[in-house]
Amino acid sequence: MKVADIAKHLEGTLDGDGEIEIHQVASLDSARSGEISFALSTINADLLKQSRASCVIVPESFAEKVPFPVLRVKNPKLAFAKAALFLGSQKKSRGEIHQLSSISENAKIGDKVQIEAFVCVGDSSEIGDETHLHAGVKIGRNVKIGRRCIIHSNVVLRENVTLGDNVILHPGVVLGADGFGYVTDGANGHTKFPQIGSVTVENDVEIGANTCIDRGALGETRIGEGTKIDNLVQIGHNVEIGKRVIIAGQTGISGSSTIEDDVILAGQVGIADHVKVEKGAIIGAKSGVMARKIVRVGLWAGYPIQPWHEYRRNLAKWNKFVKTL
Amino acid sequence: MKVADIAKHLEGTLDGDGEIEIHQVASLDSARSGEISFALSTINADLLKQSRASCVIVPESFAEKVPFPVLRVKNPKLAFAKAALFLGSQKKSRGEIHQLSSISENAKIGDKVQIEAFVCVGDSSEIGDETHLHAGVKIGRNVKIGRRCIIHSNVVLRENVTLGDNVILHPGVVLGADGFGYVTDGANGHTKFPQIGSVTVENDVEIGANTCIDRGALGETRIGEGTKIDNLVQIGHNVEIGKRVIIAGQTGISGSSTIEDDVILAGQVGIADHVKVEKGAIIGAKSGVMARKIVRVGLWAGYPIQPWHEYRRNLAKWNKFVKTL
Amino acid sequence: MKVADIAKHLEGTLDGDGEIEIHQVASLDSARSGEISFALSTINADLLKQSRASCVIVPESFAEKVPFPVLRVKNPKLAFAKAALFLGSQKKSRGEIHQLSSISENAKIGDKVQIEAFVCVGDSSEIGDETHLHAGVKIGRNVKIGRRCIIHSNVVLRENVTLGDNVILHPGVVLGADGFGYVTDGANGHTKFPQIGSVTVENDVEIGANTCIDRGALGETRIGEGTKIDNLVQIGHNVEIGKRVIIAGQTGISGSSTIEDDVILAGQVGIADHVKVEKGAIIGAKSGVMARKIVRVGLWAGYPIQPWHEYRRNLAKWNKFVKTL
Repeated sequence: MKVADIAKHLEGTLDGDGEIEIHQVASLDSARSGEISFALSTINADLLKQSRASCVIVPESFAEKVPFPVLRVKNPKLAFAKAALFLGSQKKSRGEIHQLSSISENAKIGDKVQIEAFVCVGDSSEIGDETHLHAGVKIGRNVKIGRRCIIHSNVVLRENVTLGDNVILHPGVVLGADGFGYVTDGANGHTKFPQIGSVTVENDVEIGANTCIDRGALGETRIGEGTKIDNLVQIGHNVEIGKRVIIAGQTGISGSSTIEDDVILAGQVGIADHVKVEKGAIIGAKSGVMARKIVRVGLWAGYPIQPWHEYRRNLAKWNKFVKTL
Repeated sequence: MKVADIAKHLEGTLDGDGEIEIHQVASLDSARSGEISFALSTINADLLKQSRASCVIVPESFAEKVPFPVLRVKNPKLAFAKAALFLGSQKKSRGEIHQLSSISENAKIGDKVQIEAFVCVGDSSEIGDETHLHAGVKIGRNVKIGRRCIIHSNVVLRENVTLGDNVILHPGVVLGADGFGYVTDGANGHTKFPQIGSVTVENDVEIGANTCIDRGALGETRIGEGTKIDNLVQIGHNVEIGKRVIIAGQTGISGSSTIEDDVILAGQVGIADHVKVEKGAIIGAKSGVMARKIVRVGLWAGYPIQPWHEYRRNLAKWNKFVKTL
Repeated sequence: MKVADIAKHLEGTLDGDGEIEIHQVASLDSARSGEISFALSTINADLLKQSRASCVIVPESFAEKVPFPVLRVKNPKLAFAKAALFLGSQKKSRGEIHQLSSISENAKIGDKVQIEAFVCVGDSSEIGDETHLHAGVKIGRNVKIGRRCIIHSNVVLRENVTLGDNVILHPGVVLGADGFGYVTDGANGHTKFPQIGSVTVENDVEIGANTCIDRGALGETRIGEGTKIDNLVQIGHNVEIGKRVIIAGQTGISGSSTIEDDVILAGQVGIADHVKVEKGAIIGAKSGVMARKIVRVGLWAGYPIQPWHEYRRNLAKWNKFVKTL
């Protein structure tokens, strides 16, 4: 792709030869010919001048003299990320189905779907155009997958799971396992409560390696559009997660909790059952929210959670006070 | 199955036509013809009256007039769960073995065992009658699996693991990985201690997605009858877990600890090594138990754990006191 | 293998018949003929005398009369571990490639590589001599694996991952998933930052079941020689881990942190981003280290972490003081 095309896509101002071909992004220090990089400032002027990148995305105020084209934009990091996606979108699926796969005769496979070895697709399932199923993906019956999804190796989608478009599932993700629900019958132990609901994942969601999202017991577990979930996260049955939510690694959310739009949960957070975290709230790492609590917008930390500033102030007070004991 | 047969199985009293056919359970609001639901009370009388269920399980005291048969029982939620299992038990395995599987010639496969694509069964392993091995399950050598087990996709059972009857393993479970044991030799680093023991899982155990249970180093790791384990739980080598234990998501139990019968461990709990949690103890979410402790029966919380009431009282005292600082 | 050969390998002193054949290690109580065991002391003299082991490794000072050869060494547990590795090293790979596998035509497979069913090896990848790929392993393109590695079932190595020699990966490990990095663009949500770096794992590293190690965003994630990582651990993008580090189960390390040589992280620890844990530091279970902190050598606990002795002393002070409230 020509630098001029990237400049146009990013709505930036190009200084230099727009005919140069770019095929990939790279960091300033590792970039080679044909690669585009970015610089947040000119603090590392030496690093910048020594770069072998074929083009560098820079802030609008950039004034250094460099021997390669620069592309001026408002937010170079964001523009760099968009350039990477733009370059990636040019790589078209070959649309091959590996012979060592097991696709149900009544599954519906879209155009240019790439299916690698040892993939299963169950009865009545549908795979959207240009979606890529990597080796070893196991898809049960009646699963709907949208367009341009990337399902990495050894992901398991059990029956009745639905994915929107542009969903990315990293290796080992499990969607639609049974929720953890039992009716305890005294000394007779625990009788399994039916776990026959579904999981719905909306467009543009990304889910990290070995993360588990359980199906609803009777209803649905839902992940909203544009939400990003890290590795080894646990999401229980009937949880509802809004749009553009960020959930960092090893966080767990118990059954029937609601996480509204634009919430951020840091790493190793625990959310008990029937909690509601309201739109835009941010919960710090390792915090815990007890069952049935409502978490208002704001910054929270601790277990049980407190407002962040209170948590920090109390901690400081305690550290001072304990010295007097 | 006829409503009358379900009523008999649940030892309930049926009001209405016993000849109606039921094939599945469902929630009150989603139920359609042929489905059975349940109501805990008549608080939602409108929801109840609008339900299109073919039968509803209700408390014995139920007195509303509804246009469908009701089945009166002592504990409607438990009866509903039992109805689901009863209906499920009627679905018989087809007993098919997929041609794209790899079964050792000297493995012993029982009657009506269902084996999906890309499954491996190793030398000298035995699979009990009516057990279902979903796609991509990997079973090593000398593994014994009982009857009517459901082993979901991409589960890995390494050599010498033993499962009882009616065991359910959700996708991505790993049983029998090496325990985390080394002998440190100063500057020479860590020498692997042999991890050649086994894992035994008794009848009616259910284990959640991507949970890991390590084999004993020289002895055995054991999970007792009727125990239920959630997703992403870590159980170390030589741990002994009793009967009817409940372990919620992301909890970890270190090597050589003992969890006795009827214990409940909430989510994200950490149990260090050589701990003993005595029969019936309950440990709250995110709590931690230090090495070699004995946890008596009762309700516990915090890290290090305290009796629940003390933990709550101390927290309240602290919140009050810190305001005076 | 003869007892005399083992004695020579362990540099121990043998009392008894060196011609006895040994094929395996075992505990004192389970050992049978042909197995070698160990005793740390003579406290369990009865257990020792009743053992049916064909040889027992004992401390140099051992003076009991027993009816089998004893092998005196400085550190019996270490010697036992070394004996197990020595015996294991005699078991040679058969060097078979299962016909139901999918190996790229331009992958380079070494001598005596064992490849089980449903394994994929991608374009330009290299598998070193005597490495064993268990059933269901998925290896992307341009992956380099050293010699004598054991890659257990259903491990996923994405593109450009490099492993040294003698690496052990337990079932379900994921190396090289995308790091968790986005550029947030206000109400437009989160744009994926490119995750196109690599993961390098040096010699003699062991990684536990279902652990995830993300690739560098633009650079590299690196695990140093002889480091041992337990199950369900999360290691973010661009993390650098030194040599002989120990990381226990369910610990998480956020992006761009550095863990220097000989550090020990106990279970369920959380390390935020851009942290540096200096050589030899030990961090107790469930502790948390906040972003950009430097952790000096010493023993640490709590969240935020404090020196261990301070943490314990403050806890004791608080427990005493709270009684006065």
